Amino acid sequence: MKRVYLDNAATTRLIPEVLNEMMPYMTEIYGNPSSPHYFGQQAGMAVDKARKRVADAINADPNEIIFTSGGSEADNTAIRGIAERYASRGKHIITTAVEHHAVLHTCQLLEKHGYEVTYLPVDEYGMITVDQVREAMRPDTVLVTVMFANNEVGTVMPIKEIGALCREKGVFFHTDAVQAVGHLPIDVKEMNIDMLSMSAHKFHGPKGIGALYVRKGIIVPALIVGGAQERNRRAGTENVPGIVGMGKAIEIACDDIVEKGRRMAALRDKLITRIPELIPEVKLNGHPTKRLPNNVNFSIKYIEGESILLMLDLNGIAASSGSACTSGSLDPSHVLLAMGLTHEVAHGSLRMTLCDETTEEDIDYVLEVLPKVAERLRKMSPLYHG
Amino acid sequence: MKRVYLDNAATTRLIPEVLNEMMPYMTEIYGNPSSPHYFGQQAGMAVDKARKRVADAINADPNEIIFTSGGSEADNTAIRGIAERYASRGKHIITTAVEHHAVLHTCQLLEKHGYEVTYLPVDEYGMITVDQVREAMRPDTVLVTVMFANNEVGTVMPIKEIGALCREKGVFFHTDAVQAVGHLPIDVKEMNIDMLSMSAHKFHGPKGIGALYVRKGIIVPALIVGGAQERNRRAGTENVPGIVGMGKAIEIACDDIVEKGRRMAALRDKLITRIPELIPEVKLNGHPTKRLPNNVNFSIKYIEGESILLMLDLNGIAASSGSACTSGSLDPSHVLLAMGLTHEVAHGSLRMTLCDETTEEDIDYVLEVLPKVAERLRKMSPLYHG
Repeated sequence: MKRVYLDNAATTRLIPEVLNEMMPYMTEIYGNPSSPHYFGQQAGMAVDKARKRVADAINADPNEIIFTSGGSEADNTAIRGIAERYASRGKHIITTAVEHHAVLHTCQLLEKHGYEVTYLPVDEYGMITVDQVREAMRPDTVLVTVMFANNEVGTVMPIKEIGALCREKGVFFHTDAVQAVGHLPIDVKEMNIDMLSMSAHKFHGPKGIGALYVRKGIIVPALIVGGAQERNRRAGTENVPGIVGMGKAIEIACDDIVEKGRRMAALRDKLITRIPELIPEVKLNGHPTKRLPNNVNFSIKYIEGESILLMLDLNGIAASSGSACTSGSLDPSHVLLAMGLTHEVAHGSLRMTLCDETTEEDIDYVLEVLPKVAERLRKMSPLYHG
Repeated sequence: MKRVYLDNAATTRLIPEVLNEMMPYMTEIYGNPSSPHYFGQQAGMAVDKARKRVADAINADPNEIIFTSGGSEADNTAIRGIAERYASRGKHIITTAVEHHAVLHTCQLLEKHGYEVTYLPVDEYGMITVDQVREAMRPDTVLVTVMFANNEVGTVMPIKEIGALCREKGVFFHTDAVQAVGHLPIDVKEMNIDMLSMSAHKFHGPKGIGALYVRKGIIVPALIVGGAQERNRRAGTENVPGIVGMGKAIEIACDDIVEKGRRMAALRDKLITRIPELIPEVKLNGHPTKRLPNNVNFSIKYIEGESILLMLDLNGIAASSGSACTSGSLDPSHVLLAMGLTHEVAHGSLRMTLCDETTEEDIDYVLEVLPKVAERLRKMSPLYHG
């Protein structure tokens, strides 16, 4: 069966160049980087090299990179860390209603401990403005955390403007850039980003490894304590193969990032243009232009997202109804609800996320299969009278 | 140069059988286990299989296994989780003075938040008794956390007796079994263990993956929040290759565990017997019999551990002066100090930790090199007048 993988926002394929780079560290170079002997030092040098690659990709310094087990740990570390370490500055946090749950749940946890959180509402495109952030700021605001790009609908937030505002106001600024790193050019200095979370498996790197960038001078206490690794900022033996893979993957992803983005966006736009022509009563979710080059998200009215996915899967197409992290839950997407969609329409959402390996042939196959699937399901739907 | 790796307590070689089992999940089967499509479900089934293997290895049920990024995260999760979730039962914790820092630092963190911690002193062998635990118990004791076996000196604690006591008293019992899993037979039911931490790279599995066993009915809140993974007990996309590797590694490690332990212990005992015969004024650290089958720890008086390591390394032998997690720190081992060693003697400690791949030839090579190294360094030492 032809298989088309369009769930790259959930996870990506580990590419062979990355795996090749990891292999020595899963075979002969197995030392613990903290060990002062030959085996350890070989591993330690590889970690240093990877740290530089990750730093270079976002214009940071190597010492500003803390390796974590992934994006969720990075988000938890940044938000809890800042809130606890700088509580004397204030206990008010600003975020958005459409963040990933790693951010939202951490904020909710802090609310139980006396913090106040403003969840900025978004417009119909899932967008916030810098003015919303400005208006929400209070003298006791300690942290603004706004995602770089939304994982469900791909909307890209005005990060540079928010960064400038936060720097001006002396408020820490964290961004969950899990969906953006490797897809959009990021410069933490130019964008005044204080902390940034990323995850390797979102850009063809390995699972189980991520990083938190923390600007020099900012103290983020360790979430996981008990060792001197990562300059006391994250305990636990370094995941050397994972770190090495992340370094290689980010280097590849950020090489020629703009051109690769253009190619992906062209395929994305083919879906965005053709789907409404082929299927009546669909709605594009997310911003029409300020969106990730690889994200397509449609609500297909009158049918359930889960049924579409099942039918697509039977035809070899892997897509998603939203975030993989909330699958298993029957609740409709908090992102789509925040954008004003009704429960019914939100339930019929279909996310297709491309990568730079996606071909025109893949897209054409989707355009052949999806209209048939939609038609068939609608015929079975009590809601549809087409 | 001949290379002998005797730092298996720091980390072990990822063995080819484990890597082979991981490979499909680093190539074609790259889906996110939370995704309901073909790619995701393939990955999900692999995670289920690994979870069963990990559970079987300690006589637990698969639902009682939470995958983490390693032993440190497991320790942090268990101790903080229980302390916070069951604070209404009391805020007193009992542990030992010789725990890994992942336990000690977590306890110290809790002390800052109003918890009281009893650090049980150990005897000259690094051992505590069940009576010490009993005497330390108070009506407000909520948790006992005692390591299964010490990472520096290999002393094996009376876990089964402590487990029985804790169950009788209705106090939660956690054990950091990072050094024990794969080396000693463990049965969480028979030993009345409520929570147990482990780390795959300590038994020839991959780095960056570990697990926390939590007995059914006990609620340990997530340390990393933001996703429904691991039944809401640990957010973040599952590290599928890591999990698969851990499952295979624990299966291999626990197969014929007693016999493998016997073979290692014979080589260990050759070092333990021969070193004092070949080098004057050395002291075995740790319990003479109740110790891990792979641990040798000597204080070689009048010389610095770091110098010995350097010289051994120049001869191709990788050993350690203590825990890899504290290397870089100039403080002497808290474990050796707790056992009553002076600062000077503690500084001269040498840990050699074997694995089931260690050969008699390796041991003989150490017995050839080490006495020469010790003699040479002592000649340079102002402390030695041999």
